[in-house]
Amino acid sequence: MSMNKDVITLLHGAGGSYMYSLIKEIFYQLNDGFGEINLGMLDDGSIVNDIVLTTDSFIVRPIFFKGGDIGRLSVTGTVNDIAMMGGDPVALSLGVIIEEGFKKEDLEKIVKSIKDTSIEAGVHIITGDTKVMERGSIDKIVINTSGIGFRSRQLDHNIETLRKTREPLRWLVPLNLRPGDKIIVTGSIGDHAIAILSSREGIGFQANIVSDAAPLNKLMNDIMEIGGIADAKDPTRGGLADLLNDWSEKSKLGIYLKEENIPVRDEVRSAVEFMGMDIMELGNEGKAVIAVSPEFEKDVLNELWSNPLGKDAAVIGEVTKDVEGVVMETVIGGKRYIGRPLGDPVPRIC
Amino acid sequence: MSMNKDVITLLHGAGGSYMYSLIKEIFYQLNDGFGEINLGMLDDGSIVNDIVLTTDSFIVRPIFFKGGDIGRLSVTGTVNDIAMMGGDPVALSLGVIIEEGFKKEDLEKIVKSIKDTSIEAGVHIITGDTKVMERGSIDKIVINTSGIGFRSRQLDHNIETLRKTREPLRWLVPLNLRPGDKIIVTGSIGDHAIAILSSREGIGFQANIVSDAAPLNKLMNDIMEIGGIADAKDPTRGGLADLLNDWSEKSKLGIYLKEENIPVRDEVRSAVEFMGMDIMELGNEGKAVIAVSPEFEKDVLNELWSNPLGKDAAVIGEVTKDVEGVVMETVIGGKRYIGRPLGDPVPRIC
Repeated sequence: MSMNKDVITLLHGAGGSYMYSLIKEIFYQLNDGFGEINLGMLDDGSIVNDIVLTTDSFIVRPIFFKGGDIGRLSVTGTVNDIAMMGGDPVALSLGVIIEEGFKKEDLEKIVKSIKDTSIEAGVHIITGDTKVMERGSIDKIVINTSGIGFRSRQLDHNIETLRKTREPLRWLVPLNLRPGDKIIVTGSIGDHAIAILSSREGIGFQANIVSDAAPLNKLMNDIMEIGGIADAKDPTRGGLADLLNDWSEKSKLGIYLKEENIPVRDEVRSAVEFMGMDIMELGNEGKAVIAVSPEFEKDVLNELWSNPLGKDAAVIGEVTKDVEGVVMETVIGGKRYIGRPLGDPVPRIC
Repeated sequence: MSMNKDVITLLHGAGGSYMYSLIKEIFYQLNDGFGEINLGMLDDGSIVNDIVLTTDSFIVRPIFFKGGDIGRLSVTGTVNDIAMMGGDPVALSLGVIIEEGFKKEDLEKIVKSIKDTSIEAGVHIITGDTKVMERGSIDKIVINTSGIGFRSRQLDHNIETLRKTREPLRWLVPLNLRPGDKIIVTGSIGDHAIAILSSREGIGFQANIVSDAAPLNKLMNDIMEIGGIADAKDPTRGGLADLLNDWSEKSKLGIYLKEENIPVRDEVRSAVEFMGMDIMELGNEGKAVIAVSPEFEKDVLNELWSNPLGKDAAVIGEVTKDVEGVVMETVIGGKRYIGRPLGDPVPRIC
């Protein structure tokens, strides 16, 4: 792909190394170090006075897809960003930008979905903003949700349990990772990206896969209640590859994965092979990757398995000093470095 | 204008009665009454655990205009929403959606402006999100800022001073209004809308007017320190007409205005007459309308006059039981009902 270096490209918004370059080149100057977790830490959100603040804009296409819609996604995305830091999401804002001529009926469906998902997650939409742009100046609808979350009893307990093996920070962050921590994924990978793709017209394949978009805040509270959670993150844009490289870079530790342990649905695997994509780079919207202290591995797994949202949870690897970056033992017996993707192979999945 | 009732139109995003209908018809179902100030109260933001949360999306065109740009606006808009409730804005999120092909140089200018305005307001950008859409699927760039603010010493003091004349709520809200309260506007009206219009190509007039976009949080703290402030609101989309009707409806009190006291720059007045617009409906981005208990009128005015952002402040009317709705005594001696505008006469001013 030929690239004009002076302009923004789709890759700059795709959750990979191009996006990080853009953030470091242009947005990083906004970081003034304010907050216990600040802008410069590039986490899912930031923290001031024990309040988590996070924001996410949703440009997914199509707006209604197998297993969800832009409304469900805009609640789950922000709820999960807060939950992944250990926060208890409480209140969300809703900023909607609509194209002139958009059907009210579709807006009603989206708002109903926002309402249902908020109830499912136990969060409240407390404020909003509505803008309309002329026909042709925006593609249908985009939604921003921002949200606040508070410190919970479960997080306090979880951090306390970590003290036996390390000096943790007060929230779930990559700096809590230690060699030996087990890496758990809460379920099968790639469902959301493939559901989105197969909901698009003219793609040339049909898969019977639905999006995994779901709020994970209750599941996170349940496993923090058990303890030993060093960090958690949801593999959205850029997938597992981006997430694990992020952990490795920030913790300055290696990550060793076993490919055979990574849960992937047969239909997703077929679609990925058909499309020539890398499953490691596919986005998910209802999965968490969790680094857990080894003595809590079994209990956390049991808890996850008892939850419909975690029933396919699996240990996929561990944190280690023995490798640099992210290394995967492949099913055919070799080893492969997993790099940070340039971007997401499926654009506009969220 | 012929309207298809089943689709969203530009008027639905223009801050007038069409927007309120849309909110009541579709978004209102999201209100579950959560928060000391909740979604259903349709204020500038909402309040949970003494935290103000607010959100605003910015679609202004052109993105660089006389006296500002979309970056400055996106900080001042959210800062002012928090300040108008009596909150002390502390931290903002920044969600940017960019069109593929957008010049990095322009993005840098916008981000620099965001930084400068944040410093001016004393707030921190602590988290963000970047998305990119294909060329043609979004017009250049839109920005969402959301923000949190805390309860301040000045607000506590202000509410305490109100107790002598009424039983106030704990924040600056329309329900605090009482007959006899003086209505102050902090400066000239219409500058922002006319600056935006005259920055557009092919409009057919040039005015030497710059946008008034400015953060008002420090000014608000200064006057709350004096006391007697019942409510404050910034006349953005829909202008004074929308704001005062909102106050009248929510407080169930009348508002009586004197046209001759409303500060308007000569050039703005000329432009408004040339364009055949109603000055009362024009949007502003650096002005506040304040309802103040009469015994604090003089001191609040003196404080405003000592501030560059309030030097043209004037008492434009008062809250009363003697009229219903919003009534204006015109300069030629008649009386005119000021209705809620259908929308803003200048689209996409913020």
